Amino acid sequence: MIKIHTVSGYEEVGKNMTAVEYNGEVVIIDMGIRLDRVLIHEDVNIQQFPTKELQKLGAIPDDSSIRNKKVVAITFTHGHLDHIGAVAKLAPHYPDVPIYGTPYTIKLAKGEVKSEQYFEVKNPMYETEYGEIVQVSENLAIEFVRITHSIPQSSMVVVHTPEGAVVHTGDFKFDNNNPLGERPDYKRLRELGKEGVKVLIPESTRIEQPTKTPSEAVAQMLLEDFFLYEGMEADGLIATTFASHIARLQELIWIANKMGRQAVLVGRSLAKYTGIAKQLGLIKMKGAKAVRSPNAVRKVLKEVSGARENYLLIVTGHQGEPGAVLTRMANGELYDIGKRDTVVFSAGTIPNPLNRAQRYVLETKLKMKGVRMIKDLHVSGHASREDHRYLLRMLNPENIVPAHGDFRMLTHYAELAEEEGYLIGRDVFVSRNGYLVEIR
Amino acid sequence: MIKIHTVSGYEEVGKNMTAVEYNGEVVIIDMGIRLDRVLIHEDVNIQQFPTKELQKLGAIPDDSSIRNKKVVAITFTHGHLDHIGAVAKLAPHYPDVPIYGTPYTIKLAKGEVKSEQYFEVKNPMYETEYGEIVQVSENLAIEFVRITHSIPQSSMVVVHTPEGAVVHTGDFKFDNNNPLGERPDYKRLRELGKEGVKVLIPESTRIEQPTKTPSEAVAQMLLEDFFLYEGMEADGLIATTFASHIARLQELIWIANKMGRQAVLVGRSLAKYTGIAKQLGLIKMKGAKAVRSPNAVRKVLKEVSGARENYLLIVTGHQGEPGAVLTRMANGELYDIGKRDTVVFSAGTIPNPLNRAQRYVLETKLKMKGVRMIKDLHVSGHASREDHRYLLRMLNPENIVPAHGDFRMLTHYAELAEEEGYLIGRDVFVSRNGYLVEIR
Amino acid sequence: MIKIHTVSGYEEVGKNMTAVEYNGEVVIIDMGIRLDRVLIHEDVNIQQFPTKELQKLGAIPDDSSIRNKKVVAITFTHGHLDHIGAVAKLAPHYPDVPIYGTPYTIKLAKGEVKSEQYFEVKNPMYETEYGEIVQVSENLAIEFVRITHSIPQSSMVVVHTPEGAVVHTGDFKFDNNNPLGERPDYKRLRELGKEGVKVLIPESTRIEQPTKTPSEAVAQMLLEDFFLYEGMEADGLIATTFASHIARLQELIWIANKMGRQAVLVGRSLAKYTGIAKQLGLIKMKGAKAVRSPNAVRKVLKEVSGARENYLLIVTGHQGEPGAVLTRMANGELYDIGKRDTVVFSAGTIPNPLNRAQRYVLETKLKMKGVRMIKDLHVSGHASREDHRYLLRMLNPENIVPAHGDFRMLTHYAELAEEEGYLIGRDVFVSRNGYLVEIR
Amino acid sequence: MIKIHTVSGYEEVGKNMTAVEYNGEVVIIDMGIRLDRVLIHEDVNIQQFPTKELQKLGAIPDDSSIRNKKVVAITFTHGHLDHIGAVAKLAPHYPDVPIYGTPYTIKLAKGEVKSEQYFEVKNPMYETEYGEIVQVSENLAIEFVRITHSIPQSSMVVVHTPEGAVVHTGDFKFDNNNPLGERPDYKRLRELGKEGVKVLIPESTRIEQPTKTPSEAVAQMLLEDFFLYEGMEADGLIATTFASHIARLQELIWIANKMGRQAVLVGRSLAKYTGIAKQLGLIKMKGAKAVRSPNAVRKVLKEVSGARENYLLIVTGHQGEPGAVLTRMANGELYDIGKRDTVVFSAGTIPNPLNRAQRYVLETKLKMKGVRMIKDLHVSGHASREDHRYLLRMLNPENIVPAHGDFRMLTHYAELAEEEGYLIGRDVFVSRNGYLVEIR
Repeated sequence: MIKIHTVSGYEEVGKNMTAVEYNGEVVIIDMGIRLDRVLIHEDVNIQQFPTKELQKLGAIPDDSSIRNKKVVAITFTHGHLDHIGAVAKLAPHYPDVPIYGTPYTIKLAKGEVKSEQYFEVKNPMYETEYGEIVQVSENLAIEFVRITHSIPQSSMVVVHTPEGAVVHTGDFKFDNNNPLGERPDYKRLRELGKEGVKVLIPESTRIEQPTKTPSEAVAQMLLEDFFLYEGMEADGLIATTFASHIARLQELIWIANKMGRQAVLVGRSLAKYTGIAKQLGLIKMKGAKAVRSPNAVRKVLKEVSGARENYLLIVTGHQGEPGAVLTRMANGELYDIGKRDTVVFSAGTIPNPLNRAQRYVLETKLKMKGVRMIKDLHVSGHASREDHRYLLRMLNPENIVPAHGDFRMLTHYAELAEEEGYLIGRDVFVSRNGYLVEIR
Repeated sequence: MIKIHTVSGYEEVGKNMTAVEYNGEVVIIDMGIRLDRVLIHEDVNIQQFPTKELQKLGAIPDDSSIRNKKVVAITFTHGHLDHIGAVAKLAPHYPDVPIYGTPYTIKLAKGEVKSEQYFEVKNPMYETEYGEIVQVSENLAIEFVRITHSIPQSSMVVVHTPEGAVVHTGDFKFDNNNPLGERPDYKRLRELGKEGVKVLIPESTRIEQPTKTPSEAVAQMLLEDFFLYEGMEADGLIATTFASHIARLQELIWIANKMGRQAVLVGRSLAKYTGIAKQLGLIKMKGAKAVRSPNAVRKVLKEVSGARENYLLIVTGHQGEPGAVLTRMANGELYDIGKRDTVVFSAGTIPNPLNRAQRYVLETKLKMKGVRMIKDLHVSGHASREDHRYLLRMLNPENIVPAHGDFRMLTHYAELAEEEGYLIGRDVFVSRNGYLVEIR
Repeated sequence: MIKIHTVSGYEEVGKNMTAVEYNGEVVIIDMGIRLDRVLIHEDVNIQQFPTKELQKLGAIPDDSSIRNKKVVAITFTHGHLDHIGAVAKLAPHYPDVPIYGTPYTIKLAKGEVKSEQYFEVKNPMYETEYGEIVQVSENLAIEFVRITHSIPQSSMVVVHTPEGAVVHTGDFKFDNNNPLGERPDYKRLRELGKEGVKVLIPESTRIEQPTKTPSEAVAQMLLEDFFLYEGMEADGLIATTFASHIARLQELIWIANKMGRQAVLVGRSLAKYTGIAKQLGLIKMKGAKAVRSPNAVRKVLKEVSGARENYLLIVTGHQGEPGAVLTRMANGELYDIGKRDTVVFSAGTIPNPLNRAQRYVLETKLKMKGVRMIKDLHVSGHASREDHRYLLRMLNPENIVPAHGDFRMLTHYAELAEEEGYLIGRDVFVSRNGYLVEIR
Repeated sequence: MIKIHTVSGYEEVGKNMTAVEYNGEVVIIDMGIRLDRVLIHEDVNIQQFPTKELQKLGAIPDDSSIRNKKVVAITFTHGHLDHIGAVAKLAPHYPDVPIYGTPYTIKLAKGEVKSEQYFEVKNPMYETEYGEIVQVSENLAIEFVRITHSIPQSSMVVVHTPEGAVVHTGDFKFDNNNPLGERPDYKRLRELGKEGVKVLIPESTRIEQPTKTPSEAVAQMLLEDFFLYEGMEADGLIATTFASHIARLQELIWIANKMGRQAVLVGRSLAKYTGIAKQLGLIKMKGAKAVRSPNAVRKVLKEVSGARENYLLIVTGHQGEPGAVLTRMANGELYDIGKRDTVVFSAGTIPNPLNRAQRYVLETKLKMKGVRMIKDLHVSGHASREDHRYLLRMLNPENIVPAHGDFRMLTHYAELAEEEGYLIGRDVFVSRNGYLVEIR
């Protein structure tokens, strides 16, 4: 019997952790954090807080239900913090258990481990290739299937068991035109469907969107349509997007080149994610530079402010995060942002009241300074309802355990599954954090 | 010619200030603050900040357009802070000009003046009776018309000029069943309609609600329906509402008496508003007590927590305001709030992203502690669309200048006026902060 | 083992039908229709259509899953059509099985049977008293518990089995101040909770409303607040509400009496529901009359239109239903409705696109004629989330099968149950039409 | 003095008509109908109804305010019915006055004239080239400026007067990547801005969208992303879009070619619009055919249903319009639509309750038959807020009279104008149907 431990991420968007058990052996998938829970408690510092405290606050998964199990492998679907951010806190619970992921993912996870101030993580960490099947115990093997999302080298994780495959989608969209060339491995997905999928564990954050998610190429077109037309006559141009969204950053750099401007990436996390991406050949920084240290940031922004028409600034702060570059600019620091500047938000507003408030404060301040704002030049990285239906029909799984969503999202996924012939409680299971679904 | 200076409150809900000019003489109506603008800038302290700074931040009206006019009177429609909160900052601009309002309003304004740390306010302040007509110059007289709102002794302010009356509604609703017995003075309103109203300046914060605003008696019934049924079996009971909402507080005290519990009002602002109300005979505190000082608060909450079934706590913090009693309880301070407690929100959520975020943080923390919450046992204090239509038909004004609202609200009022035969730009005027409407 | 057959009403609001099986014997609860499904197909006539056709259209329950069971009783929770409207089509499937309900409910069901043109219904029909326990087989007994809703004599139906009670709530609210004096039987509900409830089958149409549903007394106050103030000066006054909402109609008649106007109820269904209510002493028609036949309607409306200030018209058509009196008025028939008239909607808009469209057409036409409309003087007859929580705590059931709602509503109920310690799939079951929940 | 007669389309989306008057001479811009007003009255037949009746119903403009003026030209911005649909009813009011428009527009207008059954239209109709300036009186000249919208050969209409240009935008978006190659004439717009624009009359239907409207190329990508991936494995494929949206239809034909399927356009209006487009070389029908007559439709659909994998059907009925091909399919006519078919809606839902209801009925029926639906593969043809800002900055007009929208839309445009330094009532004017704005 296969058991799916729905450890975390089944009551929220964030802090994902799932465990697949077969015959007493366990494969863990993802160890994420939940940043909005940290935001609620103003005095929390993740790096310095002990695991128990963070679990009590709901900031990282409570893994007590699997802690005494025989864990044979830890896998990461991709490098976003809600999937790898708790590695430094939780991996020590499973000493010596090897950790697997794609190269970009593992390099980011190593960064998390390095910045941890409380624990030492000694687990071996392996970079895995797409397609490679890694035998992690006599009975269990894992496989990373190439998929597209808003960060490079995302994957679906397959746990092969004697009773059939368990497929965890991680976060994904079907992007057939990603400007960086990444494509879903439809061939392998169809093969898995034919081989037989025992359990599908799909993400469900965007299941309520009734149609299909547009390609990243649409975001590229939206950006070009502004920058290469109206933008050509603009003075100061400031774009802001997710620091881990390498494709989006690449598009902005290409656009800067076409405009004859230099792209300047400002902010610690932008430097971090592009740095690793560059190392792996995932981004071309030609015509661009990234600045990180407080001094360099101050210097470069002073320089830019004196010759705005020569630069395209790319900064952190699209959600109005405290301390981010754009937030500080709006506070009157670093750069005299004002009427001459246009800020392009290449990101949506994360629909959480705290985020909305931060973003509102940011926009209000920018508006009071006369800054023009262009919003929503963005497409999502998550599959919508009809994409999920497509996957369901490709994989034709026997059972489904929707993941990565609050109760409403999980039940919306269940509703889709019912449209496709499944029945809640029989072969599609809405679970909660800390519970267990037994697959008979 | 009458000129309406739409000084402030014509681009927002908050910081109201209007000036009526006739033949060079000016009557000012209201001097409010806008608290959400202060919230945006974390380091602002209203009491200690100078006027110019606060004006620049958009926290108090920018009165430069009328500052050099001959002001003959300052009037307050009612005692809410968005109508009187800037008195200490702005009244000094008009030295010696007398200030008028109903007794409750003036006493609250004096409180504002007293807590000011920057300026000294020397204007004489007079408590006016409803109906009394005060001649403030040879040409101009003012009159306070009895009306209902969510604070005692609210009034419409009429400026009588040789060209006809200018009626400023202040904030109002038509409450025919207010449990405290306050009623709109329909008779006087109809008389004014017959005498001829040259200009109506109506509030418009709730113009988008398509129907009529229910009586405060409905709020009383909602509260009784919970407390006198489910509440009778509850352990800890904590209600939270607006500190200035004396009728609501009175209802809660009556309910506590019926339940055989003692009402305990906890928090500085609750003590302030009920204190003045009690002094004027506007509230009966029988069976209730209010505690204010930090020590008394700590002591009483300790006492209550040991015998919850004997008390009905009434606390500040319905919007999750930092430092309020309920906010601190949710943080684990003052009282071990938890599964045994029910929190009743006798207030809506103020629809501003910052408020929503604070309220969300509050509710999330209370939920994590297992507290049961009953929300929205509340009715608004503002007239809805059909109430406004009723007023329009009663007063039949020649001209209209909608006030107290953002652009959308003002134009919705204009739309109502057009339904009643007015035309935007001809006899209904959508103005902005700092502009002037000339009535021909 | 108890089996709950979730025959119908588990994928929609409408056409309710549930069957409780114990040891091969079955009690049926409700046999409703779904009118919006009929609306979609323009050429459907319910009275003349055969059962199979109506089932295929989704207009009445598909009872094939229980048709060959040994049914020992049919019960009706209350007299709304979505609970009794399919009696004439489905009761013949269970010949000779007795039908039980409160007197008002049974009289309405008999009316349905009488107007059927296709089938003859021979089942015996019994009027039951609240509190009476009727033994319907050796093992099973049924009981009707007094509850409040928007139609008189509503009940929860209890099926007593050797393994414990199964409680079906029917449609309900907790109304502690209903102007007609009906009250929930809290005492009996608490007793049942102590005796042990094996399964609760709660309605869930309003589970998404986060607070408590106000008493009908609030609707009365909203109506009085308009009619006894603004209404006193009005010319033509036309109210429209649900024909089966006897309490609301009584309030309108009382109001007409207070205003010195005669209440005239116009329309076939108003006459039907008030006729039976009067017969049972549930409404006092003093100062009112009801007209039904086309000729009488035409005559009375002509009379009223010549002396509008003497009447309060109460008409059908609050949803803009084709053929209803208000709909015809808006089309320029029967009565020259116009600027002199005010239409009071004492009903919400049923949130279905077809209804919205009909209502929109109605309102647009009335607006084009200059009619003033006052909307939403209404409160719901269904329990909100906190009312459901209260019931859960009173009954403390072992298992829950949410009913009367679409997938979203049923899962929202499940979420509430999870907050109270239940777990989906373990002791709270989200089922679908035609399925079966086995209670172990 | 220039006078702008805001004849119609200033209280709704639909039935546009504006008149520019200078020194007693008038140029009319557009004569549209409002179809939703016709829908409300079920028994209305536009072709057979007289003008007065249609005006009374609000279906066509009430032109009484300009009827006795000296009209020197009638112009059409583009060929949509809400801009040309009343030509046959209203042009006879201005006998012999010449009518101007782009070739596609004029050919469509001639079609309207031909199908009229009540009036004969004798006005001369001229096809105008972009850029050409036509002197229509001694003082007045007109000019058509190339712009992009969702129908070919759309234009902004400029009326050149001795006091400066009046620019009416018609319906427009800024599409820099339209797959058919049409582009906005930015150069001429900038020139006009430099020459001096006295009055701008912008459409405002989409002013509430906060960002920029994506290019039609995005719609093409959305369509390709479905059809060329998932669609390749599908059986029956049915697309539905606006019959006048030639670019969209061209994209669908291209896609069919790429898929190796034949595109079959079914429905009278599809044949009409593509027929004229083909004649003008605006669409390439290679690999496609259009069928129009009832017999041909029946025959081709029978053929397609027997070999679905060979065809891409393109049909009318995206809003569920009664009588449209898709509507009839959903009713079980013409084609046995079912589980094997996927319907792609390349159109949004028009946000009017009647439309919503029709679309709801359509979708419900398709769902009951097991049809898969892919919705919203569509982008709008109307400028969003930031596009409007761009135009404002390009043209820098002295005065603005927002058009083509309800009150809310017009005031939202006014709000944008205020952000750019205008003031409502001073240089931006919110007008209503039948009124006049005098430009001083």
